[in-house]
Amino acid sequence: MRNRPFYKRGPDARAPEVDIIYGVHSVEAALRNKARQIKALWLTKNALDRLRDSLGSLPVEPEVVHPRSLDNRLGPDAVHQGLLIEALPLAQPRLDQIPREGKVVILDQVTDPHNVGAILRSCAAFGVRALVTTARHSPEASGVLFKAASGAMELVPFVKVTNLARAIEELKSYSFRVIGLDSETENAIEDIPKGSPLALVLGAEGRGLRQLTRRSCDELVRLDLPGPIKSLNVSNACALALYAVSRSS
Amino acid sequence: MRNRPFYKRGPDARAPEVDIIYGVHSVEAALRNKARQIKALWLTKNALDRLRDSLGSLPVEPEVVHPRSLDNRLGPDAVHQGLLIEALPLAQPRLDQIPREGKVVILDQVTDPHNVGAILRSCAAFGVRALVTTARHSPEASGVLFKAASGAMELVPFVKVTNLARAIEELKSYSFRVIGLDSETENAIEDIPKGSPLALVLGAEGRGLRQLTRRSCDELVRLDLPGPIKSLNVSNACALALYAVSRSS
Repeated sequence: MRNRPFYKRGPDARAPEVDIIYGVHSVEAALRNKARQIKALWLTKNALDRLRDSLGSLPVEPEVVHPRSLDNRLGPDAVHQGLLIEALPLAQPRLDQIPREGKVVILDQVTDPHNVGAILRSCAAFGVRALVTTARHSPEASGVLFKAASGAMELVPFVKVTNLARAIEELKSYSFRVIGLDSETENAIEDIPKGSPLALVLGAEGRGLRQLTRRSCDELVRLDLPGPIKSLNVSNACALALYAVSRSS
Repeated sequence: MRNRPFYKRGPDARAPEVDIIYGVHSVEAALRNKARQIKALWLTKNALDRLRDSLGSLPVEPEVVHPRSLDNRLGPDAVHQGLLIEALPLAQPRLDQIPREGKVVILDQVTDPHNVGAILRSCAAFGVRALVTTARHSPEASGVLFKAASGAMELVPFVKVTNLARAIEELKSYSFRVIGLDSETENAIEDIPKGSPLALVLGAEGRGLRQLTRRSCDELVRLDLPGPIKSLNVSNACALALYAVSRSS
């Protein structure tokens, strides 16, 4: 998969003004993405040397700074690895622009940016066509999300929608079979039929899928877990589901 | 699986003095664990009412506090859900006390407590017999780890060792087949033979397995990822590997 094309901007007026991107993988992926408009690149001398080794020329004039100034900017918990970018958010496709083949992942009010980022990364690892999330309860594209996505934000279209049930109906009209993950149901994920384009829907931990989301799915399936705890971290559940449907189709 | 037995304390003199446990699942699991010695339980009035509904009597006298005092104690990022415990750390088994059947997971210098916690949770979901980690680069049993483990810390023995290569040799002597995850290798995880007790070894993201760890494994396998990113978040990789070996054995 090459860097994704520069889609026309959709109707999401709440897109943030700027993306904060740090960490080696995320920054390198952003600099490699021709569709990504970089506003500024701050980095340490060491990080600049490493970056030039791996990328050659840079698409923007770097500004060399002391590591402490990145610490101050990002706070003590951000593992910035000496690199920080400010960039314009990528324009995202509409649902009718997603390829009508392969797999799509849909998140119903999953908010933790570590989880959403790890899910994006798994989506890239499994060649997922798009990640669709509810606009309201999703994290703004934040540094944590980018870091956890480890470059996957540049590869996987990230579609925010305001009404998830309506988005599911729209995907169904494009021939997607919509499968919801639900630990309470009887059917195992390995039993879903092969073939057609597939949308996997995951809900927030604890709450699971909302009623309306659940009713919108073509089918509900569960992950068969043999141990005493019957639910996984949502990003773990997503990786496992993607693997299971990749094996069965 | 019932609550694990109270093992004799091993030789790890660096065990922390106290475990900080917050969040509904982690606190409920700790209170249900008869082997867990609770020193103090602070909670909000609402949390106490819910806890009494789900647990009945409590093993320790609760102290009702204002939510803000938990915020102050734990910092703004801790999702404590109105409950906080201080408890003695659980005594952990030695390697020769782990059942010589089923699966064990070994972490080679994986340090992020979100990841280690999510891995513990997946271990509980897949009935893993123990999680073995390097002592030096592992997180102290912290609130973040407990929260991410979602109660799994009470169910899965958590064994810290000082020398991982020696621990692997010891597990081999107990008939464990030791399988290292390595994205660079040829063999796919689905091809490993069925049967014998299995130890899965995962390294830190980026660095992977250390040389000596790699050489200690009976076999190296990779996860077959079809997309443009070839590595997963380590907890996602662990969940996927556990699923794959559960399906193939």
